Amino acid sequence: MKILVLGGDGYCGWPTALHLADGGHDVVIVDNFARRAWDVELGSSSLTPIASLEERVAAWHEIGGRQIEVAVGDLLDWEFLSGVFETHRPEAVVHYAEQRAAPYSMIDREHAVFTQHNNVIGTLNVIFAIKEIVPECHHVKLGTMGEYGTPNIDIEEGFIEIEHNGRSDRLPFPKLPGSFYHLTKVHDSHNMHFVSRIWGQRATDLNQGVVYGCVTPQIERDPRLINRFDYDAIFGTALNRFCIQAAMGLPLSVYGKGGQTRGFLDIRDTVRCIELAILNPPAEGEYRVFNQFTEQFNVLQLAEMVVEAAKTLGIEATIEHRQNPRVELEEHYYNAKHTALLDLGLEPHLLSDSLLDSLVNIAIEHKDRADRALIEPQIDWRNTRNAFAPASAPTA
Amino acid sequence: MKILVLGGDGYCGWPTALHLADGGHDVVIVDNFARRAWDVELGSSSLTPIASLEERVAAWHEIGGRQIEVAVGDLLDWEFLSGVFETHRPEAVVHYAEQRAAPYSMIDREHAVFTQHNNVIGTLNVIFAIKEIVPECHHVKLGTMGEYGTPNIDIEEGFIEIEHNGRSDRLPFPKLPGSFYHLTKVHDSHNMHFVSRIWGQRATDLNQGVVYGCVTPQIERDPRLINRFDYDAIFGTALNRFCIQAAMGLPLSVYGKGGQTRGFLDIRDTVRCIELAILNPPAEGEYRVFNQFTEQFNVLQLAEMVVEAAKTLGIEATIEHRQNPRVELEEHYYNAKHTALLDLGLEPHLLSDSLLDSLVNIAIEHKDRADRALIEPQIDWRNTRNAFAPASAPTA
Repeated sequence: MKILVLGGDGYCGWPTALHLADGGHDVVIVDNFARRAWDVELGSSSLTPIASLEERVAAWHEIGGRQIEVAVGDLLDWEFLSGVFETHRPEAVVHYAEQRAAPYSMIDREHAVFTQHNNVIGTLNVIFAIKEIVPECHHVKLGTMGEYGTPNIDIEEGFIEIEHNGRSDRLPFPKLPGSFYHLTKVHDSHNMHFVSRIWGQRATDLNQGVVYGCVTPQIERDPRLINRFDYDAIFGTALNRFCIQAAMGLPLSVYGKGGQTRGFLDIRDTVRCIELAILNPPAEGEYRVFNQFTEQFNVLQLAEMVVEAAKTLGIEATIEHRQNPRVELEEHYYNAKHTALLDLGLEPHLLSDSLLDSLVNIAIEHKDRADRALIEPQIDWRNTRNAFAPASAPTA
Repeated sequence: MKILVLGGDGYCGWPTALHLADGGHDVVIVDNFARRAWDVELGSSSLTPIASLEERVAAWHEIGGRQIEVAVGDLLDWEFLSGVFETHRPEAVVHYAEQRAAPYSMIDREHAVFTQHNNVIGTLNVIFAIKEIVPECHHVKLGTMGEYGTPNIDIEEGFIEIEHNGRSDRLPFPKLPGSFYHLTKVHDSHNMHFVSRIWGQRATDLNQGVVYGCVTPQIERDPRLINRFDYDAIFGTALNRFCIQAAMGLPLSVYGKGGQTRGFLDIRDTVRCIELAILNPPAEGEYRVFNQFTEQFNVLQLAEMVVEAAKTLGIEATIEHRQNPRVELEEHYYNAKHTALLDLGLEPHLLSDSLLDSLVNIAIEHKDRADRALIEPQIDWRNTRNAFAPASAPTA
C-alpha cells in the first residue's frame, strides 16, 4: 500500500515509517524538519545522537530495508502538499506532522498562535488534499488522550451515548484539553468529524497516550537508525525526565502531588497501532476514534517504578515533589476505555518489562550528552507571558 | 463602562455600538472593514444603502449621540490590537469580529482556511490582550447556535450534566457544527473555556440564533444610521431571502423539505442580550454560555409567515422547494434551551410582530437595489472545490 507518513522524521514518525516499510508498504516520509528547528530554538537536543533524515534513510537502504521516499516541505504550503498527493496518490496518510509539546504552546502568545495555526491549518490542508486528489484515502491522524482531560466519568473512545430528558444520541465525547497544543487536537477532531459527515472522508483519529521507549525491531538493526529521546522540560515526558534524573544521580522531580493519571504505551505499540488502523480501514464516511494506550499510571507511580528499575542497576534514586508548573488536577478519577485496538489484535508491551531496556539503560548510556539545565521547568501555565528564557540564552 | 465593540461596523456590531453608547457607556468600535471587502469580492451589497463608518459615526454625533470612538485595524495584527487595549483599557469587550457566513467558508480551501485562521487566531489575540493588559475584562463573545447542530436530545446552554456508568459530571455540550465557519466558533469556545480554567478569565459565550430585522430605536433616529440587510445567497439568511423574493415577485425558495429548525431573534433582542450580559458579568474564572435566541421556527414555517405578511400588503407570494446546497438534516428533533437571558430580564420581540415593519417593508422599499442573481445559491457543501463563480464575474 502507498502510505504517506507526515512528520516521518519525528519521534513517532520515524519508527512508524520503518515499521510500515518493513511490513511491505511503499512509504513516503513528508517532513519540514520543524522538530529539529525547535531544538535549535530551545537550545535542546535529543539525548540520543540522531542522524539526519538523509543519513537515516540511506542507512536503512544500505542494510536492505525496503525503499523509503522523502519529500521535504511544510503542510502549510498547499502547492507543496498537493504536489506530494498528486505525485504519490496515497491510499493512507499517517499524520504526525504537528507541534506536539504542551509546554511549547504555553510559552507565550506567539507560540500559542504558532501551534494553533500550524496544527489546525496544516490538518485542514491534508483534509483538502484528500478531498481534491484521493477522496478514498484513509486519514490516520494522531490525536491525544489529553483532548479528554480528566472528567469525573469514564472516558469512552471518541463518542458517548447520552441519555437526556427521555431521549438519547451518540455524540462526540466532551473535551477538556489542558493546553493550547491539546486544544489543537480537539479542533482537528471536530474538523475531521465534519468532513466525514459532509464528504464521506474515512478517518481514524488515534487519541494517543504518552509514548515511551525509543527502540523498535527495525531501529535495532543499525545504530544510525537510532530514534530521538527527549528529556528536556519542554518536549520531554515526565517518564523520560525521571530516567535521565536517575542516570545523572538527581532526585526525580514529581510536579505537585503526583496523582495526575494518564495512559501510556510503548513506541512498539504505537507503530503496531498505526499498522492495525491501516489494515482495518473505516468505511466511507466513517470517522472513528481509538484511544491508543495500553496502561494507566499516575506520575508518582512512574517515579516509583523508575526508582525500582534504577535499584537493579545499583543506582539509589530518590523522589522529590516540586511545585507544578501546569494547571491540572493532581488527584482525580481516571478510567479511559481502550479496547478498540486490542480488538484489532494489539498485543501490548508492558512498561514494567520495557523500563530497563528501553529507558533507564538508554538514559545511562547517553547521560554525558544531557544538559541539566534543560530538565528544569521553564514554562508556567499561569504566567504564559514573558515566562520564557531559552536555556541557551544568557540570563540576567 | 468602557467597552470595545470588535466588528462594530457590521450587521450586529453597529446597532450594538449605538445601543451601548445610548445606554451611557463609553464605546470604541474596532473594525477592519472586512465585511465591506467581502461584498466587493462577491459582487454583493447590502440591500439597504449603508453609509461609511465615518459617516455613520459623524451622523450619530450630529444628532446628539454619546461619543463613539473608532479604531481601524485587524485582530490578527497584535501590535494594533494590543495598542487598542493599552489605550482604552476596556472593562468589557464585545467580540463580533469574525467571518460569519457558513457558505463563504465552504467556497473552497482558501476560504475555509481564511475563515478558520481569521476567526480562531483573531480570538486567540483577544484572549491574550485580555490576559496581558486587562485581566479583569469581561469577554463577551458571539458564538452560534450552529455549534450544536441538530442532536437528537435537548440542547442545553453550553454544558450538560452527564450520568455515565454510575458517575456524573457537568461537561461541555457535544458539538456537531455544519460548516467550516461554524467549526471556528466551536474552536473558539474550547479556547475560551480553557483560559477561564487556567487564567481565571471571565467570559460570556453567546450562542446566537439567526438574527433578523435591521431597525433599532437608535437606528430609527436618522436615515444615515441605517443598518445592513443582506439578502444574497452567501451572507443573507433564508428569512431575508424570502422577504426580497416576495418583494420582487419571485417564488420563495425553500431548500429541501424545509424542516430545518433553528432559533431566531430580533436584532433589538441581540443588542439587549449583549447589554444584559455586560450588566451581569460572570465571576472570575467563569466561562458561561447563553443560548441567545427567542423563538424556534423551521424554514418552511418562515416561508409561510412571509407569504402571510406579504398578503396583507397585496402581494401573492408562492413557495417552491429547491435542491438543498447544504448537507444538513431536513427533518429532525430540535429543542434548545434559552432561559438564561430571559432570567436576566430579556423581553423578547416576536417575529410575527416584526415581520412586516422590519423585514417585508424594508425589502419592498429597497427592492430596486436587489440583484436577482445574488439570490441563487452558488456554494454547494458537497462540492466545495471550484464550485465558486462570483456573481460579478463573467461566466462562460
